[in-house]
Amino acid sequence: MNKPYVLGIDIGGTNTVFGLVDARGTVVASSSIKTGIFPLFEEYIDALYNAIKALLVAHGAEDQVHGIGVGAPNANYYTGKIEYAPNLVWKGELPLAEALSEKFGIPVAITNDANAAAIGEMTYGAARGMKDFIMVTLGTGVGGGVVCNGTMVYGFDGMAGELGHLTARRNGRLCGCGRHGCLETYCSATGVVRTAYEFLEARVDEPTMLRDRLDLTSKDIYDAAMAGDKMAQDVFEFTGKVLGEMLADFVSFTSPQAIIIFGGLAKSGELLMKPLREAFEANNMPIHKGKVKILLSELKEADAAVLGASALGWEAK
Amino acid sequence: MNKPYVLGIDIGGTNTVFGLVDARGTVVASSSIKTGIFPLFEEYIDALYNAIKALLVAHGAEDQVHGIGVGAPNANYYTGKIEYAPNLVWKGELPLAEALSEKFGIPVAITNDANAAAIGEMTYGAARGMKDFIMVTLGTGVGGGVVCNGTMVYGFDGMAGELGHLTARRNGRLCGCGRHGCLETYCSATGVVRTAYEFLEARVDEPTMLRDRLDLTSKDIYDAAMAGDKMAQDVFEFTGKVLGEMLADFVSFTSPQAIIIFGGLAKSGELLMKPLREAFEANNMPIHKGKVKILLSELKEADAAVLGASALGWEAK
Repeated sequence: MNKPYVLGIDIGGTNTVFGLVDARGTVVASSSIKTGIFPLFEEYIDALYNAIKALLVAHGAEDQVHGIGVGAPNANYYTGKIEYAPNLVWKGELPLAEALSEKFGIPVAITNDANAAAIGEMTYGAARGMKDFIMVTLGTGVGGGVVCNGTMVYGFDGMAGELGHLTARRNGRLCGCGRHGCLETYCSATGVVRTAYEFLEARVDEPTMLRDRLDLTSKDIYDAAMAGDKMAQDVFEFTGKVLGEMLADFVSFTSPQAIIIFGGLAKSGELLMKPLREAFEANNMPIHKGKVKILLSELKEADAAVLGASALGWEAK
Repeated sequence: MNKPYVLGIDIGGTNTVFGLVDARGTVVASSSIKTGIFPLFEEYIDALYNAIKALLVAHGAEDQVHGIGVGAPNANYYTGKIEYAPNLVWKGELPLAEALSEKFGIPVAITNDANAAAIGEMTYGAARGMKDFIMVTLGTGVGGGVVCNGTMVYGFDGMAGELGHLTARRNGRLCGCGRHGCLETYCSATGVVRTAYEFLEARVDEPTMLRDRLDLTSKDIYDAAMAGDKMAQDVFEFTGKVLGEMLADFVSFTSPQAIIIFGGLAKSGELLMKPLREAFEANNMPIHKGKVKILLSELKEADAAVLGASALGWEAK
């Protein structure tokens, strides 16, 4: 093979991370740009192209890339478009594969960022050897990747696995997708912040390090919880409970061998995982109790998505 | 092939239907026994064996059966056992495939009754040619069969597709499976009756044909609704709404081309289907709105499950 690399791109609501990956799955170089600061999609594509070009030039790899694989929110594997992604600033259908392919002159394949992470986990991580598993990514939003019978489930229209938009609470919080009560309004980084503000409002007399903060982040809440703040700990308790309940429902759907948790919140450790596991086991059907593992991603956060996306680059045509 | 038939058996909570099926998918003879009247599993197997034997003898087919396929609640394709089925009188793990195989001396394969219906629908019914669809069966309970990439999803442990046990209402009605709020506590025949009794209690002063009935069935409620009874109509409105909301969540999971509805309640026509379709479209994500069909089974109720189960009989070994 005279082109020894693929390029993997992971587009998140906040950051876009990209990396040059060799055939053995080593990320030989990587960098990132901000996603949300470009009002126009075309401006974003230009900025992404320039940043990637600089990385390729720096590594003498300009003519060495076989294909590009992209993981992006609401990315359709079949059409090559991002379709109505609630967490991106650009609306409607965005011809991502076509735009990148024109710029670089090499083939591009795209999928849901969580699907890309699942492919990365299956190839290099905690899901090696598994034929049935579910990937759940906890970032700005909540994403999902479903693998059944050893193959990625893309669905009829290429848009399967939107697990962050299953309903955690009927008539619950308003979601960016226009629906109410979606899992991601509770168990994403932004969902955790919403929970904190709800608790602050409901428990006005309780002393807490979170009080009178208008710019709370999930990291602030994590730090407070680790410092012993009761309300902050309760936020994680609630988040883990909601997620654990939903994961039990996922098990009833496709009976996975394991559910793999990935993303910023997954790094919260037992603060999140203890209530999550308890709610999961309590809510599993008797036939599934004690059988299904909840695992943390074994890949570095940036690498999993970039590696998974890059694997698509080998197949792109 | 010197054995031109397979035998399909559909085990429901109430009835067990079985049929002799030829290679072209014609049910050449069928009969049934009651399921719930045998306190011991062994007695049930004896009764089932005798009834099937009589059918085979009557058709001169005793030595003409290639294999037996069974659809049963919580039936595990991999182990051949019924495992902890909430709607059957026998508890624990029941070695169904082994018991039947010993009796008949021919190979037996089993699966979830709803999976069997899905296979029947894919082979002979509304899902012909579809690679991604979901089957939902509305009977004594609610069952599901998930087909992705053209193959049945059995999951890691053979128990996938228990869609009746996804949570429709968090902390809702107690389910036979021990959990709360399962879809089947709302949208099965028994769920419809529970809704009617709830409405009767909540609306004590409203005149209705359902009042003062201690033995209501879903058929009674259907008849009352068709006769113009407001409360009975509201029961179907609520049932359709709950089901439509949940089907929209199913779409976010596997992006099916269609969801196929099957079973007794599916025969309620627009009473159920109108609120179901409305709630489904209202709750679908923007990317899925207007794209996914809700279809009624094209097979006769008994035939679909028996045909689907029988298809497993050709593969049994």
